[in-house]
Amino acid sequence: MAICITDEGVTSAQITLACSRSAAATWTFDELPLQSGGSFGPVTLAYETWGTLNSAGDNAILLTHALTGSAHAHDIERPDDPRAAWWNLLIGPGRPFDTERYFVICSNVLGGCYGSSGPSSLDPATGCPYGLRFPLVTIRDMVNAQRRLVEHLGVRRLAMVAGGSVGGQQVLEWAVSYPELVGKAVVVAATPALTAQAVAFSEVGRQAIMADPRWQNGDYAPGQGPDAGLAIARMLAMITYQSEEAMEMRFARRPATRRNTTPPSGHAAFGGPFDVESYLYYQGESLVRRFDANSYLYISRAMDLFDVSAGYPCLEAALRRIQSQALFIGIRSDFLFPAARVRRLAEQVRQLGGNATYVELDSPHGHDAFLKEWDQMAAALALVKE
Amino acid sequence: MAICITDEGVTSAQITLACSRSAAATWTFDELPLQSGGSFGPVTLAYETWGTLNSAGDNAILLTHALTGSAHAHDIERPDDPRAAWWNLLIGPGRPFDTERYFVICSNVLGGCYGSSGPSSLDPATGCPYGLRFPLVTIRDMVNAQRRLVEHLGVRRLAMVAGGSVGGQQVLEWAVSYPELVGKAVVVAATPALTAQAVAFSEVGRQAIMADPRWQNGDYAPGQGPDAGLAIARMLAMITYQSEEAMEMRFARRPATRRNTTPPSGHAAFGGPFDVESYLYYQGESLVRRFDANSYLYISRAMDLFDVSAGYPCLEAALRRIQSQALFIGIRSDFLFPAARVRRLAEQVRQLGGNATYVELDSPHGHDAFLKEWDQMAAALALVKE
Repeated sequence: MAICITDEGVTSAQITLACSRSAAATWTFDELPLQSGGSFGPVTLAYETWGTLNSAGDNAILLTHALTGSAHAHDIERPDDPRAAWWNLLIGPGRPFDTERYFVICSNVLGGCYGSSGPSSLDPATGCPYGLRFPLVTIRDMVNAQRRLVEHLGVRRLAMVAGGSVGGQQVLEWAVSYPELVGKAVVVAATPALTAQAVAFSEVGRQAIMADPRWQNGDYAPGQGPDAGLAIARMLAMITYQSEEAMEMRFARRPATRRNTTPPSGHAAFGGPFDVESYLYYQGESLVRRFDANSYLYISRAMDLFDVSAGYPCLEAALRRIQSQALFIGIRSDFLFPAARVRRLAEQVRQLGGNATYVELDSPHGHDAFLKEWDQMAAALALVKE
Repeated sequence: MAICITDEGVTSAQITLACSRSAAATWTFDELPLQSGGSFGPVTLAYETWGTLNSAGDNAILLTHALTGSAHAHDIERPDDPRAAWWNLLIGPGRPFDTERYFVICSNVLGGCYGSSGPSSLDPATGCPYGLRFPLVTIRDMVNAQRRLVEHLGVRRLAMVAGGSVGGQQVLEWAVSYPELVGKAVVVAATPALTAQAVAFSEVGRQAIMADPRWQNGDYAPGQGPDAGLAIARMLAMITYQSEEAMEMRFARRPATRRNTTPPSGHAAFGGPFDVESYLYYQGESLVRRFDANSYLYISRAMDLFDVSAGYPCLEAALRRIQSQALFIGIRSDFLFPAARVRRLAEQVRQLGGNATYVELDSPHGHDAFLKEWDQMAAALALVKE
């Protein structure tokens, strides 16, 4: 059951519509042991599928989404619109994630706000949203929940797991935690653990959310959440998803061209906004309309805390477990998950005896290139085709 | 007259003490024409000097400070403590800014909160702090106010102007606006205009300040200002002043070692803070104790709006005016003012017939390296010695 926190003035019906746009199915199971100890339940996962599972249950591809993503990786009604779903152009008949050959699955992560259990879900014990009573969830917990889902769907072995950013962290976790279940692993723009700089950016965004008096320690009513804080967090995140080069090409020092964008604080920059500022205001406003601030706190923190070596004697011991054919895709201009670190990860896996390939997207678009560079992504994915 | 906004619980006496620590002198003049039109007055500038002006009035060096800096570039009581003043180790007898040969001047910028007229100053017309009634001031306005000050001090021609970051913008403006008055110009970690990315970071910080309900449209009482917003802005700025490389060396993924640091929101990150987070909390708290949020808005915006070519047909026309021996110092790891852009600026000046040298600090410390790499700074400054 999805609860999305949206702008004030949006009716419940509109909220339901916005959240059900992707028409995700849901499945609920009783209980999930958590990495931090204890367990959580019931757990609902929202998911979408495309294509058909074969009788052997071994032609499934699991796609894992990024921080503010959802199960809606593909849109069968608008398959050629890159804005209709996050990896839309890569999914479909004859496309890299070929729905004529594969059963493609994407689920909203545990902690999310697009139908899966998260802080905005109602706690059945109280009938109120969990808020901060939702447990700390990790990438490993998200993957373990996905594992339960794919088993439920009849999958015996995943032909492939693929995703970028937080999704890439999930792929790496899958390949290390369940080597026997993952045929191919496509880790895009992700590393074994975040840099100090990336954690730092992440925490600034969270502080902006939690400093917003409307956050109310996480107990805000739908439509009454910390919109300004979430918009500020999003503005910052959008800078880190791009690059100096891309922003210079796109905005340089031009004055604002967008009209009707509202800064999070309600106060525009002195001296009239630059175009890059009104663009960021727009991005902030857009996220506030579609995403829950508490989910943002939980998932961004899972991203920071992710360390694929956790529980193993060392990183090498974790990476040595990988049996998948692994493709690592870095992005030249990514400063959140620097390409050099993705390359090093691929080299480490290879040195440990793994089957690892590294490809670098030659893109100025920074971290977000994996959601924009369709041709380069398709070319890279061709390397793990039979 | 300085008014510093500090944490709650600090008495007026303590505030006065904190603000007068640098024992800056002040000088007031009636009126300054402003770049945006109109004029502002009276204008007070706080300044410090070291050394003696010669009878010809031509042995003065003007040092220009960065965003949250003050006139206190040097501390004669603790001349060897790098933390006692911002360019402390570069100033003094026999040092690059040699106080036995030069009359060294540093003034707090117009718009600041360390004794010069700024938004926290009292408007003589009302007896209340200006707040947002303080006019929009630009780098050019700051330089014009400095020009009035150095004339008042008896300086006929500046032997040198030197500064980094916002200070470097001021040096460049000096060299272009007053070519006949500037013997040598040392522009450190500054460019003719900010990148879109740098403006974007800057605006995220300002939005955090203005979204803080205690900001009150700029009309907060001393000690009642937007501490959380200013601390968040500072946390973000501190990331941009460093580099991925430096943060990785210093913090990596270690858990917090600092105790008693308080996050701006009062809520620490889920899962216990990383060291880099508690460091940023500390930096946020420290700035709140010593800096005025409105000054932060004004000076950071002056930094964004700075375009040395404003009022000239093109950048080349502005740069062609430079007659100074110019030294441009870039920093390898600076991502706010990328070294490549500083180098390009030096090359442009040289191609236009100017006397320009470029030196790059080989430092991992990012933008802040000009306040840390004493040996490399001294070596670079030796290039503009007679």
